[in-house]
Amino acid sequence: MNNFTYFDHAATTSVDPKVFEAMKFYFSEKYGNASSIHSFGQEANRAVDNARETVSKYLGCDSEEIIFTSGATESNNLCLKGIVEKSEIEKPHIIISKIEHHCVLETVEYLEKKGKIEATYLNVDKEGIVNTKDVQSSLKENTILVSIMYANNEVGTIQPIKKIGKLLEKINESRKNKIYFHTDAVQAIGYLDCNVQSLGVDLLSLSAHKFYGPKGIGVLFVRKETKIAPLHHGGAHEFGLRAGTLNVPLIVGLGVAIELLQTKEYKNNLKNISSLRDKLITEILRKIPQTTLNGSRENRVPGNANFRFKNIEGESILLGLDFEGIYTSTGSACASGSLKPSHVLLALGIPQEEAHGSLRITLGKDNTKEDINKILKVLPKIVKNLRKISPLK
Amino acid sequence: MNNFTYFDHAATTSVDPKVFEAMKFYFSEKYGNASSIHSFGQEANRAVDNARETVSKYLGCDSEEIIFTSGATESNNLCLKGIVEKSEIEKPHIIISKIEHHCVLETVEYLEKKGKIEATYLNVDKEGIVNTKDVQSSLKENTILVSIMYANNEVGTIQPIKKIGKLLEKINESRKNKIYFHTDAVQAIGYLDCNVQSLGVDLLSLSAHKFYGPKGIGVLFVRKETKIAPLHHGGAHEFGLRAGTLNVPLIVGLGVAIELLQTKEYKNNLKNISSLRDKLITEILRKIPQTTLNGSRENRVPGNANFRFKNIEGESILLGLDFEGIYTSTGSACASGSLKPSHVLLALGIPQEEAHGSLRITLGKDNTKEDINKILKVLPKIVKNLRKISPLK
Repeated sequence: MNNFTYFDHAATTSVDPKVFEAMKFYFSEKYGNASSIHSFGQEANRAVDNARETVSKYLGCDSEEIIFTSGATESNNLCLKGIVEKSEIEKPHIIISKIEHHCVLETVEYLEKKGKIEATYLNVDKEGIVNTKDVQSSLKENTILVSIMYANNEVGTIQPIKKIGKLLEKINESRKNKIYFHTDAVQAIGYLDCNVQSLGVDLLSLSAHKFYGPKGIGVLFVRKETKIAPLHHGGAHEFGLRAGTLNVPLIVGLGVAIELLQTKEYKNNLKNISSLRDKLITEILRKIPQTTLNGSRENRVPGNANFRFKNIEGESILLGLDFEGIYTSTGSACASGSLKPSHVLLALGIPQEEAHGSLRITLGKDNTKEDINKILKVLPKIVKNLRKISPLK
Repeated sequence: MNNFTYFDHAATTSVDPKVFEAMKFYFSEKYGNASSIHSFGQEANRAVDNARETVSKYLGCDSEEIIFTSGATESNNLCLKGIVEKSEIEKPHIIISKIEHHCVLETVEYLEKKGKIEATYLNVDKEGIVNTKDVQSSLKENTILVSIMYANNEVGTIQPIKKIGKLLEKINESRKNKIYFHTDAVQAIGYLDCNVQSLGVDLLSLSAHKFYGPKGIGVLFVRKETKIAPLHHGGAHEFGLRAGTLNVPLIVGLGVAIELLQTKEYKNNLKNISSLRDKLITEILRKIPQTTLNGSRENRVPGNANFRFKNIEGESILLGLDFEGIYTSTGSACASGSLKPSHVLLALGIPQEEAHGSLRITLGKDNTKEDINKILKVLPKIVKNLRKISPLK
């Protein structure tokens, strides 16, 4: 048993022992280069093919539509920059929401700053939900891509991806230049249906380390006939879309992680996570005054809870919990160290000073009732003590 | 003991068991996100810092000059595209050799085709060596980058990097816009001095899986004050030069692989590899008529041997050896599946039909005298039999 309590599963998860077992042979035993012609290389290549097959079945697409990348940041960069590069429109238009992950937001801001695109950043409501009507009214003649995350990494809000997918499908019927639809599904996988056909997306990003696979491996689903350029040149790997030696062990690991998501055990975990998280929300709001849940109570992935505590800093709470061996976060790990308030919380209309008082608690498959009891015992005291010495009140 | 003989170390190597031992805890135990503020994340971050320190000491630079990437393809793409993007010259000029790895060559061709750069592709002599005078005479006012690989992946030829480094250092003294010097050291590390100060390079690329580290992790050394833009946007990881969750286990593995290179054991391996390779070359040339060594006899990394056998196809030899459990290659794994003759061999002045008859045998630390005896026993027969049925003679 761990001597700590991990509540930061949106930042990263532990590799499932079954994933590790499957990967390990590919480091020092079956270590061939999947591009080598000899049978040792081809054995590695078959392992990659199997993983690709597993992923494609899970997403409901063809295996040639699966591109392995080094993670979701690369997948999202490849998607955005690759679509823009291949576009025949002089200055194409991209629509994203204001609460996308940094790697989408900053890539779009970069492309905009470079003068390569026009961009629309959609507002969200106070729960963090994009209005499909806003997508529709933002469409222009030069729109080539709509990219809306499936579930938010900070507040867990679920977006109406299927609804937006349907809208765009209908609009594309009578359009000359297709509008591609991308979703960053990093925080959704394992919790929500990721079938690309029912979602109606043309591109979808995943990262293995968010669902008990290893860090450093991700996926970009790219629907056939999508016009997209590679980000890394050199070598014809990954159907010409991603050069570089295939990361065989980690691809195998990602495949097994996807398989595990479909087991009874994982499906049971999901129910457990959901009920633990509900208890956590109810009890924190009951026990700690002047506390608000950030995001939506209903449209929220099971693992996510995110609160703001009046008059104190989220980082101080985090450190107080850390002292007790409880690991949480104040927002995106990718933005940590930054003193700026979360762009997500600001987009939800939360005032800057209140946004600073936020704490993200994200649950995973190994969390127990005891973990919840532990944080429920400790957190009210920490908040109380911090408020006592707070200069903000 | 293996029931096969692996002679394809230039394509990839097995992970050293010591590397695996060090990495494994970071998958399922110390799995924190190195960007997380809590102590569990900071523990992961310290492991990354240690690895960064190891790499920087080995290369003779500061740890803030080490950027972890997903491998050499990404490192080389980041270097070339990043330098071009930040250049204030309208159409900058880049010099590379004709025998660079595909990921350098194709990236430069891509940038040239896009109209973003002018490019010079330097000839090499029949051993595959770039002439420093050619570098000098190719320099233009708009030259921003010279990128010459340290050792070639197909024929193992070592380039005069220090000499070119000195030349460029001198020229830079009296120039307004600095010429950066990059070397792809993927095939050199472990064999040749990689101290960036004595080499005189501003950028240097490495890939762990070529020196007994894991696939999917690489390094770009970037000298301080180098003007370079990131390839992946989102998050301030890697000093703003490479967004994405740090691949903690693989970074730890890369660090240990670098440590191992400096052990007595590895230094002894090197001598062993060298003498086995020399025996291999001598005996193959002695035993098999109409056979030529591709590349240089002297200026060659210890692990590499590359022959051309008249009137037969390299791929047929490869398959014949494969049948005997001996794994070799015809050239770069990244180019396999392609029917084009090797651009490296063509640049060495080898006629197309002869280039097709080439076989690369690359040795590693675990190869033994028995391995050499095995291939020396089998290869002459395979060549003889293939020549019997060859339509080319």
